[in-house]
Amino acid sequence: MSKFARREGPIRLGMVGGGAGAFIGAVHRIAARMDGKFQVVAGALSSTPEKARESGRAIGLPEDRIYSDFTSMAQREGRLGDGIEAVAIVTPNHMHAPVAREFLKRGIHVICDKPLTATLGEAKKLVKAAEGAEALFVLTHNYTGYPMVRQAKAMIDAGALGRIRVVQVEYPQDWLAAPAAADNKQAEWRNDPERSGMGGATGDIGTHAWNLARFVTGLELESLACDLDSFGEGRRTDDNAHVMLRFAGGAKGMLWCSQVAPGHENGLRLRVYGEKGGLEWAQENPTNLWFTPLGEPKRLLTRRGPGMGPEAERLTRTPAGHPEGFLEAFANIYAEAAEAIIAHRSGSEAPAGVTFPTLQDGLEGMMFVDACIRSSQKDAAWVSLK
Amino acid sequence: MSKFARREGPIRLGMVGGGAGAFIGAVHRIAARMDGKFQVVAGALSSTPEKARESGRAIGLPEDRIYSDFTSMAQREGRLGDGIEAVAIVTPNHMHAPVAREFLKRGIHVICDKPLTATLGEAKKLVKAAEGAEALFVLTHNYTGYPMVRQAKAMIDAGALGRIRVVQVEYPQDWLAAPAAADNKQAEWRNDPERSGMGGATGDIGTHAWNLARFVTGLELESLACDLDSFGEGRRTDDNAHVMLRFAGGAKGMLWCSQVAPGHENGLRLRVYGEKGGLEWAQENPTNLWFTPLGEPKRLLTRRGPGMGPEAERLTRTPAGHPEGFLEAFANIYAEAAEAIIAHRSGSEAPAGVTFPTLQDGLEGMMFVDACIRSSQKDAAWVSLK
Amino acid sequence: MSKFARREGPIRLGMVGGGAGAFIGAVHRIAARMDGKFQVVAGALSSTPEKARESGRAIGLPEDRIYSDFTSMAQREGRLGDGIEAVAIVTPNHMHAPVAREFLKRGIHVICDKPLTATLGEAKKLVKAAEGAEALFVLTHNYTGYPMVRQAKAMIDAGALGRIRVVQVEYPQDWLAAPAAADNKQAEWRNDPERSGMGGATGDIGTHAWNLARFVTGLELESLACDLDSFGEGRRTDDNAHVMLRFAGGAKGMLWCSQVAPGHENGLRLRVYGEKGGLEWAQENPTNLWFTPLGEPKRLLTRRGPGMGPEAERLTRTPAGHPEGFLEAFANIYAEAAEAIIAHRSGSEAPAGVTFPTLQDGLEGMMFVDACIRSSQKDAAWVSLK
Amino acid sequence: MSKFARREGPIRLGMVGGGAGAFIGAVHRIAARMDGKFQVVAGALSSTPEKARESGRAIGLPEDRIYSDFTSMAQREGRLGDGIEAVAIVTPNHMHAPVAREFLKRGIHVICDKPLTATLGEAKKLVKAAEGAEALFVLTHNYTGYPMVRQAKAMIDAGALGRIRVVQVEYPQDWLAAPAAADNKQAEWRNDPERSGMGGATGDIGTHAWNLARFVTGLELESLACDLDSFGEGRRTDDNAHVMLRFAGGAKGMLWCSQVAPGHENGLRLRVYGEKGGLEWAQENPTNLWFTPLGEPKRLLTRRGPGMGPEAERLTRTPAGHPEGFLEAFANIYAEAAEAIIAHRSGSEAPAGVTFPTLQDGLEGMMFVDACIRSSQKDAAWVSLK
Repeated sequence: MSKFARREGPIRLGMVGGGAGAFIGAVHRIAARMDGKFQVVAGALSSTPEKARESGRAIGLPEDRIYSDFTSMAQREGRLGDGIEAVAIVTPNHMHAPVAREFLKRGIHVICDKPLTATLGEAKKLVKAAEGAEALFVLTHNYTGYPMVRQAKAMIDAGALGRIRVVQVEYPQDWLAAPAAADNKQAEWRNDPERSGMGGATGDIGTHAWNLARFVTGLELESLACDLDSFGEGRRTDDNAHVMLRFAGGAKGMLWCSQVAPGHENGLRLRVYGEKGGLEWAQENPTNLWFTPLGEPKRLLTRRGPGMGPEAERLTRTPAGHPEGFLEAFANIYAEAAEAIIAHRSGSEAPAGVTFPTLQDGLEGMMFVDACIRSSQKDAAWVSLK
Repeated sequence: MSKFARREGPIRLGMVGGGAGAFIGAVHRIAARMDGKFQVVAGALSSTPEKARESGRAIGLPEDRIYSDFTSMAQREGRLGDGIEAVAIVTPNHMHAPVAREFLKRGIHVICDKPLTATLGEAKKLVKAAEGAEALFVLTHNYTGYPMVRQAKAMIDAGALGRIRVVQVEYPQDWLAAPAAADNKQAEWRNDPERSGMGGATGDIGTHAWNLARFVTGLELESLACDLDSFGEGRRTDDNAHVMLRFAGGAKGMLWCSQVAPGHENGLRLRVYGEKGGLEWAQENPTNLWFTPLGEPKRLLTRRGPGMGPEAERLTRTPAGHPEGFLEAFANIYAEAAEAIIAHRSGSEAPAGVTFPTLQDGLEGMMFVDACIRSSQKDAAWVSLK
Repeated sequence: MSKFARREGPIRLGMVGGGAGAFIGAVHRIAARMDGKFQVVAGALSSTPEKARESGRAIGLPEDRIYSDFTSMAQREGRLGDGIEAVAIVTPNHMHAPVAREFLKRGIHVICDKPLTATLGEAKKLVKAAEGAEALFVLTHNYTGYPMVRQAKAMIDAGALGRIRVVQVEYPQDWLAAPAAADNKQAEWRNDPERSGMGGATGDIGTHAWNLARFVTGLELESLACDLDSFGEGRRTDDNAHVMLRFAGGAKGMLWCSQVAPGHENGLRLRVYGEKGGLEWAQENPTNLWFTPLGEPKRLLTRRGPGMGPEAERLTRTPAGHPEGFLEAFANIYAEAAEAIIAHRSGSEAPAGVTFPTLQDGLEGMMFVDACIRSSQKDAAWVSLK
Repeated sequence: MSKFARREGPIRLGMVGGGAGAFIGAVHRIAARMDGKFQVVAGALSSTPEKARESGRAIGLPEDRIYSDFTSMAQREGRLGDGIEAVAIVTPNHMHAPVAREFLKRGIHVICDKPLTATLGEAKKLVKAAEGAEALFVLTHNYTGYPMVRQAKAMIDAGALGRIRVVQVEYPQDWLAAPAAADNKQAEWRNDPERSGMGGATGDIGTHAWNLARFVTGLELESLACDLDSFGEGRRTDDNAHVMLRFAGGAKGMLWCSQVAPGHENGLRLRVYGEKGGLEWAQENPTNLWFTPLGEPKRLLTRRGPGMGPEAERLTRTPAGHPEGFLEAFANIYAEAAEAIIAHRSGSEAPAGVTFPTLQDGLEGMMFVDACIRSSQKDAAWVSLK
């Protein structure tokens, strides 16, 4: 039984990173707030003391729980009677591992942004360090929180497509198509290999595409060939990746991610084809899931519309026809985490159906990025994932 | 200056209606929570004491602020030092007016679901009663909270379409196409003219369609001809309305709302055509706004994409390509209300740009429903709005 | 048995109207040519002798079968051993009736563009004149030639929607949204009530919308209320019509046609809703037919895709996924006419399934236009069709 | 000046292949007929004499110009005073080269289906044999005949995208996803490497995808890596190809073609991204061309809509909003051929703008297929095109 047993009320959440101006920190806070199951009570939102203080005040933190140093935060919160039960890590990628370790070792659950780390080496060490940890590790591969993504996975698990033959996944964007603007904080650290880590587009959005395909199909990747490019002027990391995929069991696939494809905002799209049918889902209109059983009319499944299973149903908040989006899907990861954390309080298992990306998913994502880079360094030759 | 002047922190919100099983109450709570600007601290979620207690506990209300009688709630909260500053009214329609009056007269702001009342008479009395009230009245015509709806309005205000000629608006659903299920609470009270009031589809979704057209175009309706039907077996209120519209200044329009149109979930769609161009927006994919300037290529505007103005920008939370939906739009009404309420605390005006539907909009909606019914009773003859 | 019995080879076709610069004449010629079943061998393409000669030569007519006077053409062709078996009439609307009568009375089949005539009175006289005529009369309401329109009709005939409740049909265009250009021949005669007849938009495209709804649903129109407008500067005929429809048996509907709706090219769209499901078809992407059975996932039927019946199959020329369009649909009317004419040569019935719009459909179209105008003249009051 | 100089009237066309039951032969005949510029006057529609006779009669050929042997046909037609001026070759792929050579050497123009030949070796020999031939060679890569494909090419030529960075092209189908049916003539010869030649999907549809990308972008392919599969039970040729592309100048791309992707009919789709913008076109709705200039609203260009250039305009037959499809695009290849042949009659150059795929395009297509197979045989390693 956890040290948090018997506790009630909203889960006390801390945050590391996510100070003023950061995009993903604000998203995590909305996601945590949406269902009323978390309360943000502490934070080291910046490593700059003044910015940490201002950012903490802006989100209503008590003065004595505003930190500028995540180690101090972990130490003190770990000792407080009503210290945080979980921490959201929304720093640049290279800080994920050191921050996570500080909290995990104190039994504080970690909800960490992706990709898992900046390098595969760090990821492996983190996985090792987490072995035996009592606390949970939740990786916010948020696209797995979309109801229709769950529906797609459930249909494939149930055999609706038969044996899978082909997987096509892509994630095009255009925000780096123009020369990098000096004042774009998001673009800036993501363009710095020291902070964003291995892979530019590959790490930032390629991991999302890869994770989505992996989550929905359940297929294991054996090898890949990857052609990386940095088209943008002044780009220090890749901004376009073309990848061919070979899965265990004989399925084949392609993955394309790009940050230089004008006209695309967040064009994540997955298509899966099996012996008996196909599925297609696109993030920009996440309500819709195309199911194309071979030899039958095409069917457009909609969130909470006819034909939905319980896996999608349990993650929706509004009736069919009222679109839910990115924030709701992100909040679903938090909702799943909350279910697991609340069960953990009393030492029980998370309820059936509760699903979220874990350290293992994060490690596989880093192995994917690592393989992309190794392949690219060999002039896009085929490389094994391991 | 309001009695709430100098207060800080989240706005203390109460709720009347919205007990377990109610759809719209849960939506209001998520909307209130999303940006952390409200805190629900009191409620009369049901008029049945036990249900009120259970529902109150389920959403974490303190025991002493759970009520089963809205009058008691208004009296006590009005006297408490940290009593509620605002109340969300999410009861069946016929209760909106009596509840609102109790709170308004105590200077407690009202955030009320639509339609304003069950009858036009009630609406007129409520408007009269509210004259001189210090408190704000916010009607949750939530579709006006979508960023691209604001964008559409701003473009029309700026003359992008020239003089408007034609307005086509529709709101088809299919949830009442099958014979009414006895156990559907939503369907049940909406099918009871005593509680849902004038108009079935007309009041429930026709008012949304009408309000959307009114909000975006700014046009005043002069007369209409309306053919009402109750196609559903056992239906006591209308479930389909065909309406022809004549606006001041010569523009013409059509409005169709239906609850018996298989294949439609919440198919609210507005199209406006002027001398210089057209606009089209549909609620089920609210990210997109089509702008078709005459003689130029069609343009697809997207939330936070190129060409957005500040009116849309200020109501978004995520980057372009990350879909925002119904809950975010609903939360935008609350966000606008919060801006106004916070300004009101210090006796100042709401910041420029803050916009929300008011009593006047609610009254116009009821006048629309009333005219539809009057016309229908005259075999769909033309009737004036006034 | 017809005078043309025992004849073989392509059907000998004449044409009246359709000289250089005319849009619809060229379309008829392509349609006639597509399947090799007709050969254009004579024509009075213009009433101006020189233009008739040049236009006739341009399409390869023999000199001695170029006419500038349709009466002479009818007389001579009726006497020739290898005279035309059928004539395509593609003149302005007010000439349809006089031309048709000349050919019909000589046993020459008529393939006539729509609307049937310029006035309801002419239409009635033509119907009367044609009574007892041996020759066929084919009205090119070409949208009934689209395979998916046939599919929709077949599904409704087979009861896939159950009893029909609501019909929504529209035909918006934008080509008259700008002030009429003096040099647009199409716009010019259509803007002249003497030549285009009753109804501007109503006659030109409203008849198409009406005919499509009539053809697919089989419903009879009992009464309507119509609000006509002429928004375009200098417009002498209506360019926008809003119409509410009441069908025999209780179904209701709306029809909108407009030539001043920026962004629309030929936006003909039909939606039909019954007790058991809905159908939607739009001319601009005619491959697709949405079928939404109540309570089941939406289905997208495609031309020659799974689920197509023989009524659609017999009118397609290419495999699924190879789009067929306007010209193929138009050619289907000619193909149906050819089947009927060839059967007529030997005095037999047209094969089962052969379907094309007739004089009766044309008459109903004119009754629709007439009712629109009568209603509009009474300030858009309800009028009976008869 | 050609031996056909001074001739007038429709171009006399012969056909080799395309007997009863053949798909593509019928398409060629409709394409030839659509504009009235060709007349089919001779044919060897089958190598089986009886079938040749029946098929020839069915399309109305004179008895003395029905052949069952293409060599006899070439010899006799080459000697006739009114012999054919051009021949359409619609045989299985391995017969293209021998047939073409017989006609080319007699100065008879060749309009040949794609891919050019069954093997790269045959293609090279045919190109060599054709050197110095007076007659034209037109390869029916029909997708280049779509107006919006011409528009895309013209925009790229004019620099609308700036320097091209990424090309994504795909052609998924599903007709071979189920086990091959024994009675499908199309499937049967295409599954026989002797007759269909190198490449199954690669040759049949991969060449289309490749040709489309090549035509629109003008980019030269330097190397590729290709992973071929034969997923279908009993499949002897590839039915899925994943290809990574490297172009001269640094652009990169991906090509996917598949015949086992359930839900796809003829899903040819091209996306091109440059420094300044993107373009997207899909064959199944060929009216639309998306143009996404970086930093500006997305624009949907439509056939004959605003913003079209003369390259697209000259290849359309109907107004905007009346969809044109596969047959019209195919007929455009014939129309272009007709322009060139008619100019050739008088020894002049084809008019400016006339464009059609040639032997060189066919050779490049075969080089693409050959490279795919070479790569696949090396476990999908990178190979140079040459």
